[in-house]
Amino acid sequence: MRRALDAARAAALAGEVPVGAVVIHDGKAIATSANAPRTLHDPTAHAEMLAIREAARILGRERLEDCDLWVTLEPCAMCAGAIAHARIARLYYGASDPKGGAVEHGPRFFAQPTCHHRPELYSGIGEDEAGALLRDFFRERRA
Amino acid sequence: MRRALDAARAAALAGEVPVGAVVIHDGKAIATSANAPRTLHDPTAHAEMLAIREAARILGRERLEDCDLWVTLEPCAMCAGAIAHARIARLYYGASDPKGGAVEHGPRFFAQPTCHHRPELYSGIGEDEAGALLRDFFRERRA
Repeated sequence: MRRALDAARAAALAGEVPVGAVVIHDGKAIATSANAPRTLHDPTAHAEMLAIREAARILGRERLEDCDLWVTLEPCAMCAGAIAHARIARLYYGASDPKGGAVEHGPRFFAQPTCHHRPELYSGIGEDEAGALLRDFFRERRA
Repeated sequence: MRRALDAARAAALAGEVPVGAVVIHDGKAIATSANAPRTLHDPTAHAEMLAIREAARILGRERLEDCDLWVTLEPCAMCAGAIAHARIARLYYGASDPKGGAVEHGPRFFAQPTCHHRPELYSGIGEDEAGALLRDFFRERRA
């Protein structure tokens, strides 16, 4: 999660909502990404999406059933869907997101009968720091 | 939808689940994509995602509020989330998808309070042909 938080900080410096994600395979971080929709002109470029795509590219396959994903914020519906499509084994996330989250809020995607893969879920890891990064970012933008 | 169905047929020929998508801007098709997760080694490479990303790249911005999306199958949670993030104005889709759809099934994403943008929705357009393509594809794979 340390590495994901560093990526979130890098996102903030680039003017992006500070969220970071890391894919772990065989105990190694093979893809680390910062949220970047504005920078990349890509509405799908959330940290989780970029990390999953990079990991799949590196491993040369569309399924990551032997990989874990660490992300600083509760995934949205788009990212939760991608996590299921990728067959991620374990999902670790930091702050919960009542406004846009889709794991414990709104669609609660992994609990839906139309969800074809549910990762093991671990939440609240590093949530104080992840949440503080987001609060500071939005406070500065409003100032 | 004719163009989206052609892309779906191309997906089937490439061994991918036959789904196609087109983004329309100013009355012109600016991005046409076929479903390609296996070919691209990318679990996020659904037709809608590829078309949205391509359109955003071409227009040089992350929001497509003046664009419409045509897709042959009811979008899943990942794609519905991306459609909301991209602020797509109108969504036209063909066959409904009780197993993985997230518009009229499962998460019913656009009806959730955590969904920040809901496109105008038009379903059932070309659904007979879109559904037949999918049925033929899965029948041949089982044969």
